[in-house]
Amino acid sequence: MSENGSKSAYALAGVDIDAAADAVDRMKAHIKTTVTPGVLTGVGSFGGMFALSALGKLDDPVLVSSIDGVGTKLMVAFAMGKHDTIGRDLVQHCINDILVQGARPLFFLDYFGTGKLEPSVAADVVKGLSDGCRENGCALIGGETAEMPGLYSAGEYDVAGCIVGIVERSKIVDGSRVQAGDVVIGLASDGLHTNGYSLARKVLLIDGKLDVNDKLDELGGATIGEALLTPHRCYLKPLANLLDANDTIHAMAHITGGGFTDNIPRVVPDGIGVHIDKSSWPVPPLFRLIQRMGEIEETEMFRVFNMGIGYILIVRPDDADRVLAHLAEAGETAYRLGETVAGSGVTFA
Amino acid sequence: MSENGSKSAYALAGVDIDAAADAVDRMKAHIKTTVTPGVLTGVGSFGGMFALSALGKLDDPVLVSSIDGVGTKLMVAFAMGKHDTIGRDLVQHCINDILVQGARPLFFLDYFGTGKLEPSVAADVVKGLSDGCRENGCALIGGETAEMPGLYSAGEYDVAGCIVGIVERSKIVDGSRVQAGDVVIGLASDGLHTNGYSLARKVLLIDGKLDVNDKLDELGGATIGEALLTPHRCYLKPLANLLDANDTIHAMAHITGGGFTDNIPRVVPDGIGVHIDKSSWPVPPLFRLIQRMGEIEETEMFRVFNMGIGYILIVRPDDADRVLAHLAEAGETAYRLGETVAGSGVTFA
Repeated sequence: MSENGSKSAYALAGVDIDAAADAVDRMKAHIKTTVTPGVLTGVGSFGGMFALSALGKLDDPVLVSSIDGVGTKLMVAFAMGKHDTIGRDLVQHCINDILVQGARPLFFLDYFGTGKLEPSVAADVVKGLSDGCRENGCALIGGETAEMPGLYSAGEYDVAGCIVGIVERSKIVDGSRVQAGDVVIGLASDGLHTNGYSLARKVLLIDGKLDVNDKLDELGGATIGEALLTPHRCYLKPLANLLDANDTIHAMAHITGGGFTDNIPRVVPDGIGVHIDKSSWPVPPLFRLIQRMGEIEETEMFRVFNMGIGYILIVRPDDADRVLAHLAEAGETAYRLGETVAGSGVTFA
Repeated sequence: MSENGSKSAYALAGVDIDAAADAVDRMKAHIKTTVTPGVLTGVGSFGGMFALSALGKLDDPVLVSSIDGVGTKLMVAFAMGKHDTIGRDLVQHCINDILVQGARPLFFLDYFGTGKLEPSVAADVVKGLSDGCRENGCALIGGETAEMPGLYSAGEYDVAGCIVGIVERSKIVDGSRVQAGDVVIGLASDGLHTNGYSLARKVLLIDGKLDVNDKLDELGGATIGEALLTPHRCYLKPLANLLDANDTIHAMAHITGGGFTDNIPRVVPDGIGVHIDKSSWPVPPLFRLIQRMGEIEETEMFRVFNMGIGYILIVRPDDADRVLAHLAEAGETAYRLGETVAGSGVTFA
């Protein structure tokens, strides 16, 4: 609203510059909690600046970056009216993505697009982003809030984010050391993470007519919405020490869209396949509920969902017990899932 | 489609993993044209890798990054059925953003969200991204294509992108050298760039009932759609040499959302205002058409639109003529717009 009480032409066209300023003000307190020593700029600069000198001496640094969204998990957040965890999902997903190559996060930038900007909702999303960043030593260094009437429906938004991390070239984990006979270790996920939500929502909420507030005994008393909105687990902290010890980890894979089937082959050399024993870990009840209600074939379940395993390590057989002990000590639930074999792709027993 | 001709459950839920693979295949040829010496990874890696060693010896490097979208300029692209320039808009906007602090681009990542993935449309968007990247020495190092049924309407999409660039700390342009009496130089824009489209579309297409295919004499024979879809001009090449010559440029501003009014004060020190002579450059006909048809006050025009000036330089008076000559030689249309003064904000004469 301008001072004389009449709306500007831009506001009448659905874009409220004052609402954008209000949103940025509400975000600032959250963003400030993520500042790390490399950050040179405050909120409002054209570009976010990060000084590499804050990292100390670097021999041959390689920047590792990834961009992503959280898919239609957003629509669970809309249905629940809960917007302060989606940002954590996004950051933690991205941290896991660059962790695959051995990188630690430096900074993150977010893009928030919406039909009508609600400053409190935008601020809640940024709170979640800031929580995920702060807890993992990652600075939230930039962002864009875009009000786009007509493109998004009222009360809806999309959020995307980009992470930039760093690794010394000698410590890049690229799968080249993987050999047949290596051990495949899986780290437990916390629910669906950020994949398969269009199918899960169709099966549970649309065709199955369940409500996000329904409680099911087999979900341990959680509502469907709570179970679906559980944030994406981040594997940086439990793996950080292992990455410092060179050569322990031969390869890693983040189990995202495409599941085991598409993600594990991305990180092993040609001529190597992975054999997984499906009885080696318990598939959590939420996945079995979706499978049963949707009458979905097991093969497809493993291509769409993480099935209870969010991250994969491939290690030398001699190191497996030590790695499993380290992960248990770090609070992770980890399983010996199988082994690498001569061949290709993922086979199951 | 699976081999037996029946659709998978995921495809029935609106997410087609095979369409995503097709889209990525079509994108690869474009993406490959953007590879620069620092790039270590191909398409399909979890994280995009860029080796800083490719840049030679760096004294005190600072990463400068920005994330953005193209706003509802997208809806002009939808109406025209033309998807291969929007990506260029996005990249060139982002390059200008980090150029404000003196940074050159290293790499770019894009996020493409849509309701139903059309591989040819996604590939056209990536072609535009690749064109903008390749021509400016920037590698398209990562991306995400997300099919989100229900969030986006059929045939619609949003696209966001993140740029990472670099500058030596001693060459950061931060406005601290700006003094009263400096000269303000403006570089001509190519149309609306990526701001004000919700208002422009409302005035011209919705309330004004013009069609994107209508030709208007005052637009020099171009259609409304062509005039609106003209890509965001990139100012990296004409300014690169000036940035190498330390101290010439005291401050720069990218005229984006908020126009002159909000963007110039972001880059000058407290106690300094900017005085602009509005008769010093010709406001292009497209802006006057919008202003006239929408009966929009001049003050608001200058807060929403770039009004024909896409980028601002602030230089020492002694350097102004040399800079203007350099810009003319580099093919830019540049104007002496005014000067810095003791005070604050932007005043117009």
